[in-house]
Amino acid sequence: MGKPITTPPKGSRDFLPRDVRQRTYVTDIIRGVFQAHGFAPLETPAFERLDTLLGKYGEEGDQLLFKILVRGEPLVAAVRQAHAYLAQPGALVQGRSGETAPGAEPMLADLGLRYDLTVPLARVVAAHQGKLPSVFKRYQIQPVWRADTPGRGRFREFYQCDVDIVGATSKVVEAEVAGAAAECLERLGFSDFKLRINHRGLLRAIVEHCGIAASSEADAIVAVDKLDKIGVEGVERELQARGIAAEAARRLLSIMGEAKSLAAVKAALAGSERAQAAIAELESVLDFASVTAAHAHLSFDVTLARGLGYYTGCIFEVAVADLAGSLGGGGRYDGLVGMFLGKDVPACGFSLGLERILVVMEERKMYPPDLERVDAVIAPVEEHDMKAALAFAEQLRRAVGEVAGGNAALSVDLLPKGTQPGKLRKHADEHGIAAALWLEPGAIDRASLWTKHDGVTRKDLSVNDAAEALREQRRLTKQSAQ
Amino acid sequence: MGKPITTPPKGSRDFLPRDVRQRTYVTDIIRGVFQAHGFAPLETPAFERLDTLLGKYGEEGDQLLFKILVRGEPLVAAVRQAHAYLAQPGALVQGRSGETAPGAEPMLADLGLRYDLTVPLARVVAAHQGKLPSVFKRYQIQPVWRADTPGRGRFREFYQCDVDIVGATSKVVEAEVAGAAAECLERLGFSDFKLRINHRGLLRAIVEHCGIAASSEADAIVAVDKLDKIGVEGVERELQARGIAAEAARRLLSIMGEAKSLAAVKAALAGSERAQAAIAELESVLDFASVTAAHAHLSFDVTLARGLGYYTGCIFEVAVADLAGSLGGGGRYDGLVGMFLGKDVPACGFSLGLERILVVMEERKMYPPDLERVDAVIAPVEEHDMKAALAFAEQLRRAVGEVAGGNAALSVDLLPKGTQPGKLRKHADEHGIAAALWLEPGAIDRASLWTKHDGVTRKDLSVNDAAEALREQRRLTKQSAQ
Repeated sequence: MGKPITTPPKGSRDFLPRDVRQRTYVTDIIRGVFQAHGFAPLETPAFERLDTLLGKYGEEGDQLLFKILVRGEPLVAAVRQAHAYLAQPGALVQGRSGETAPGAEPMLADLGLRYDLTVPLARVVAAHQGKLPSVFKRYQIQPVWRADTPGRGRFREFYQCDVDIVGATSKVVEAEVAGAAAECLERLGFSDFKLRINHRGLLRAIVEHCGIAASSEADAIVAVDKLDKIGVEGVERELQARGIAAEAARRLLSIMGEAKSLAAVKAALAGSERAQAAIAELESVLDFASVTAAHAHLSFDVTLARGLGYYTGCIFEVAVADLAGSLGGGGRYDGLVGMFLGKDVPACGFSLGLERILVVMEERKMYPPDLERVDAVIAPVEEHDMKAALAFAEQLRRAVGEVAGGNAALSVDLLPKGTQPGKLRKHADEHGIAAALWLEPGAIDRASLWTKHDGVTRKDLSVNDAAEALREQRRLTKQSAQ
Repeated sequence: MGKPITTPPKGSRDFLPRDVRQRTYVTDIIRGVFQAHGFAPLETPAFERLDTLLGKYGEEGDQLLFKILVRGEPLVAAVRQAHAYLAQPGALVQGRSGETAPGAEPMLADLGLRYDLTVPLARVVAAHQGKLPSVFKRYQIQPVWRADTPGRGRFREFYQCDVDIVGATSKVVEAEVAGAAAECLERLGFSDFKLRINHRGLLRAIVEHCGIAASSEADAIVAVDKLDKIGVEGVERELQARGIAAEAARRLLSIMGEAKSLAAVKAALAGSERAQAAIAELESVLDFASVTAAHAHLSFDVTLARGLGYYTGCIFEVAVADLAGSLGGGGRYDGLVGMFLGKDVPACGFSLGLERILVVMEERKMYPPDLERVDAVIAPVEEHDMKAALAFAEQLRRAVGEVAGGNAALSVDLLPKGTQPGKLRKHADEHGIAAALWLEPGAIDRASLWTKHDGVTRKDLSVNDAAEALREQRRLTKQSAQ
């Protein structure tokens, strides 16, 4: 047997300590903003029933779900059933990479991994009705999984940070979710992001206005959504490929290309009641948003479409110039909860993509330098004094006192072998630990302390003296980082 | 089509806001203790290659893995292959619930959901060798998944909180991981837990001493592990069923039943070098642990076996009287990393089971009363003044000032509809929100504030006045909770 493969599976990653600290730094800030806005935390299982997920994300979404194999006894029947299915004429569907058997999957799998945080929210609202407030404001920061082709800032396992408000039609909720998302980005140090806004009802009205049949509406919107990526000519080709008449396609693209402002669109669609209603909603959202963090970043963009099928009203997308694709997006989806509950419940949300935010923060060096949180490493010079070193470490860890940067206890690492002071200082230096403490041979209750901050070694310190010195060091490190 | 099922899949749960707050309260304390002990955070993907997981957890573990269906083109071949496998004579294996096809699974699945946090750690150590310190102390708090039968405190999706030290043979690391685990429980408010310790090498020596063949050693240890659950007679039957001679089984159970202290075992196995070496290690661990939080809870128990196959040295288990099963456990596993790296690396860890800790904390009412963190709900009396209410909320959320209980911003919920003061106060009361703020018709920059704490309504407050009152309220709530 060869040496086993030890890299994480395709599109997934191991987060080493530095990665986790950066991720935690970012999610703590996002969580803080969401909580300040009165959103309450929700968490849902990693897997959902497959039929909860299927049909919610469009055809492509269905194919990108990770599906979990049925277990035990039912597996035998499932294999036989799937095999019989494959033997049927026409059962094989030609996919991008040859023959595939999507129709066989639901027989073999009963669960699917979470694909986004919105469908689980809709299910939760239906399941826990009555236990939740009539206006339910929740945030959720959890991973989702998509069997997509990995790329820059694009993974098969990635975190989303979502806020949603369920149960309210007032357009103030659009301003609330967009404002919270914008404030997250501002507090992380972003100032140059653009928050584009549009309205699905307006897109529909435009499609209608251009003489495109209602049955082709979704096709037209999917094509328009690619304007950013494939340009005017690409979209024109795609519209034709989807059976939309050349004349209608040209009219659509002309409005998309020329109507730069909300006023221009309003004038161009003066005769469409549907368009005017959507524009009134957009105006209301923009007015509310003017008192939030979203204000400085918001702009109307008639070409914004958002891919996901479930949006019904305003839609948002946030991006920075130096990353293709978005940092997040959202909008109103008044029909999704109804798919689970049997009656429509209005809802609106915003989702920030953690991985893309992290990619840009890494490239722009936006992390504070003091994310490393180990205050000291301790070791005895001779292994024989290990118990005394452990006792010293334990007392430091429990030393009560105000530590700069929160009330977190002192973090003390014990090196489990006898170590010479020079080697210990080198160890501290190499691993980003701020100080080294060692017990001279035979020492009990006393240690020598070297702090990286000033390069000074203090000898014969009691636990209390050492604790005070380590706290002072953290204060100074924090100050110099500001 | 009937109404879809909206409950979470079997053995998984939705965590509503109160649940998440309780879980976060507990994991924050655990994380703080782990960090104070110098452990660094690690996170690994939810899924691993199936061959990373298979063969690490014993036969039962292999069967309890959630497996992910292969995707796209390879699925067709996999279905055909699995079907052909089923047609082979003897391919069907009789399981507890009838026919199963475990042999067909690896053809149909390429990934498996994380089953514990230890095997992923071993893989990470092999994959990132050189990037990690030679003694790697990591903590990891993440969910794992097992297709087990759900029960009290037993789920198919559950969190583990692990600390491990990789790369050190000193028995001080046993004391470090057990000490950290014990301190977590103490800081959560547990004082009555028992931390049992034993040694796999000692168990082997006892098995050998009783005349049981080396080939039956694992069987004997698995049977002994059930002593708690099925009693002496049950274990005796199981030993016989596993082909161990009645006389040897009786000798084994007699040592297990009579040797209550380490000294007694030491005397009974005076002639076994293997036993004496294991006992020396246990004595060393107990000596080191005497200066840690583990000390008051530790006791030797020769019957402790721990189910998992990979332990090689000291083993631990922690439990409270009012919950069957354990709150966690751990031990030394010097061979596991070698399965990935090709050379052995010593390792030792402790895993706390979050769900079981939460079950006991809920039953014993160990949560602080002020986990709810919304400081106020705000609304305009008339919908027309919604924008002024939003502006007031936004200013409160950004109001800078020291807030008792950390520097978290004030948390202000906005009710997105015009609401009468009486109804708003009722809403606050019902949803555990500490105060209600409302804007009288036409008001701008001024609000009325009702605080639950004293039942008083203050009128005509500026943002700064309201912020100060809300901070004071949080201080008082926190005080009265202590």
